[in-house]
Amino acid sequence: MRDLPFDVDDPRLAAAAWSRLLEPGDKVTAALVSRLGVVEALQWLVSVGRRGVDAGAGPSAQAAARLVPRLEHLDIRRELDVLARLGGHLVLPGDQGWPAQLDDLGEERPFALWVRGRLPGEVPMAQPGSARAGRPAVAVVGARAATAYGQRVAAELAVGLTEAGVAVVSGGAYGIDAAAHRGTLTAGGYTVAILAGGVDRLYPAGNAALLEAIASDGALLAEVPPGCAPSRSRFLARNRLIAALAGATVVVEAAWRSGALNTASHAAGLSRPVGAVPGPVTSMASAGCHRLMREQGAVCVTDAGEVLELVMPLGAVAPQSPPVQASLLDDLDPGAARVLDALPARGSAVVPSIARAAGLSPAEVRSALGHLELGGQVERDGGAWRRARIARGERGERGERGRDRGTRRGSP
Amino acid sequence: MRDLPFDVDDPRLAAAAWSRLLEPGDKVTAALVSRLGVVEALQWLVSVGRRGVDAGAGPSAQAAARLVPRLEHLDIRRELDVLARLGGHLVLPGDQGWPAQLDDLGEERPFALWVRGRLPGEVPMAQPGSARAGRPAVAVVGARAATAYGQRVAAELAVGLTEAGVAVVSGGAYGIDAAAHRGTLTAGGYTVAILAGGVDRLYPAGNAALLEAIASDGALLAEVPPGCAPSRSRFLARNRLIAALAGATVVVEAAWRSGALNTASHAAGLSRPVGAVPGPVTSMASAGCHRLMREQGAVCVTDAGEVLELVMPLGAVAPQSPPVQASLLDDLDPGAARVLDALPARGSAVVPSIARAAGLSPAEVRSALGHLELGGQVERDGGAWRRARIARGERGERGERGRDRGTRRGSP
Repeated sequence: MRDLPFDVDDPRLAAAAWSRLLEPGDKVTAALVSRLGVVEALQWLVSVGRRGVDAGAGPSAQAAARLVPRLEHLDIRRELDVLARLGGHLVLPGDQGWPAQLDDLGEERPFALWVRGRLPGEVPMAQPGSARAGRPAVAVVGARAATAYGQRVAAELAVGLTEAGVAVVSGGAYGIDAAAHRGTLTAGGYTVAILAGGVDRLYPAGNAALLEAIASDGALLAEVPPGCAPSRSRFLARNRLIAALAGATVVVEAAWRSGALNTASHAAGLSRPVGAVPGPVTSMASAGCHRLMREQGAVCVTDAGEVLELVMPLGAVAPQSPPVQASLLDDLDPGAARVLDALPARGSAVVPSIARAAGLSPAEVRSALGHLELGGQVERDGGAWRRARIARGERGERGERGRDRGTRRGSP
Repeated sequence: MRDLPFDVDDPRLAAAAWSRLLEPGDKVTAALVSRLGVVEALQWLVSVGRRGVDAGAGPSAQAAARLVPRLEHLDIRRELDVLARLGGHLVLPGDQGWPAQLDDLGEERPFALWVRGRLPGEVPMAQPGSARAGRPAVAVVGARAATAYGQRVAAELAVGLTEAGVAVVSGGAYGIDAAAHRGTLTAGGYTVAILAGGVDRLYPAGNAALLEAIASDGALLAEVPPGCAPSRSRFLARNRLIAALAGATVVVEAAWRSGALNTASHAAGLSRPVGAVPGPVTSMASAGCHRLMREQGAVCVTDAGEVLELVMPLGAVAPQSPPVQASLLDDLDPGAARVLDALPARGSAVVPSIARAAGLSPAEVRSALGHLELGGQVERDGGAWRRARIARGERGERGERGRDRGTRRGSP
């Protein structure tokens, strides 16, 4: 076997070479290289290639048998040239800009990232004055065969995350991924697409313009060099990078079996929170999300605020509960509520009759009426009591209250 | 104060009287009556009424002050006559047919049930030969302002529960309740409506025909006698009966604040499982369901099979996973999948080239190809290998597989 045409002792070239040699997902060999270090491992592989593979002699020999055929046409400088022509750069573990959260992958950490655009660590926080060390990131992933509902929700989550200064990570695919990326870019946010193939291959082709926009305003990342085609195993391995780069993973729509569940499973394996967006039970596109909630303990998330709770420290997120029309009865103690309930809709009633209707003692009724009178909710009518009349200026508000109360009375 | 016009020493009359005297939800007095027993408690109240309430002398005197005014017009035989004319009957704790699960309410157990129709214990199981002691019941509850989606899901759950021999309990209201009752009756099942007012008051009026049908084929229950109007506090107290009668409570649709959440909270308080049906996050009618999942640990349920898992012992329910199209790749070991992935879509390839593309050793590739050949998935092409051609008769099936695989390849 010939010598490699580049300097195998150069750590950057060796790391880049391993990102080409090793098939993502080959955990055994990854562990071997990780323990030896990229330079020593490459020297070893070249020497094995020179003297021939000794078939069947333990796991490292088996790994060598897999890899030696790939040395044949290897010249990683070509792929680096392609990357440079695209304006990209190679980032190794420990480099400035290397996303430290990928280190949580341990021996499955990629040897290098092939990057077009700016890595999260290189992008200033959108929120001036923020004291946070890094920009939090959330993965928003889901089905390619997404519904209009799912794409709308993904885009809205992306906008909400952007407004909170959070980066949006996804996989660049059709459907949910594309909606999440697009929503982020539209809102002026920062988004990362992690590809299964090389960053020169804008796959799928229909997303080429979107992926170019991401390379320009965010980042395209891959752990394999330019020229590598996306394959099933690379997609599956890529999903671990999405899960590791983000502080939490949210699945917006996913069929019962879906690659997005694989990403969620990686996130859970890294002890990162997993959120799932519910949808109609009649939609097969939401079946995987519901399955995540049932079987994997995924958190039900319905808006960006709830997603932020997954990555932000407690108390950092203002609750985003839907605005609720204050009900007339909600502010009352139970006794007052019962007395108000017992007053006739029209006309007035005396205390003994109110007491019977409410099931309270006359003393309790009198006390409650006093409070209700102070609150302007009941009025005296001679010796009897009636509901307060609506002042002219309050009619709109009271009308609301009336509707609300009517609803509650029907079936609380 | 006059004497009561009926025999206060008759336990049935005394229990019935307490169901009129005591406002549902008055826990303090309920506990008092429960400890004394209905007869002794009624004797005590009558005697207090005779000698006058001694205001402010401890909790029992306060309770008496609430209740004595209600003695004035009390003749519970009138309400029992109304019930008899409607063909109903009174059921007390310990009676044949008394639903023993209500005993879990402890001191909040109702004193009596005013019943039209047949109680769950009086109805034979739909499944002949079933060895179960009683008929399991599930509460299906939710918003009055339900969407078409929610009503459809409620009806489908009711049909599925009926097919499994499970009773459906609900509150007789518009929306989800009505859909659940109707679905059950349509499927020939058994359903119970627990009303907040008397069983002579078919409330809401728009459901009168439905409630009559329930009285005829299932049961209408109330803890208050005929003549009692439904009120807010009675609705809230009624919800505890729904939760207690059922082995599990499922909320199909509920707004952020909804009475159905109150029922769910009662169920949780009784350590009964709570399920919530997800829906679009854009639908306010599902906001309460999602809230239950997020804040109360409700189980996400999407079909009757998943609801049955809440009430049936483990293993008693056949899993109802959606049918999944078997993927070509799912049955393969990872090596074989990678080899198949590495084969060109058209034409053939030799082992060293397949090994490079797959990132496997030539020996691993040869072994995988052997297995794939046995499975009819690859064919020899001279010294090379190609994907197997599709036999005529298999085209339909293979077409399915092809689609499935295409989907998976795009974004697993």
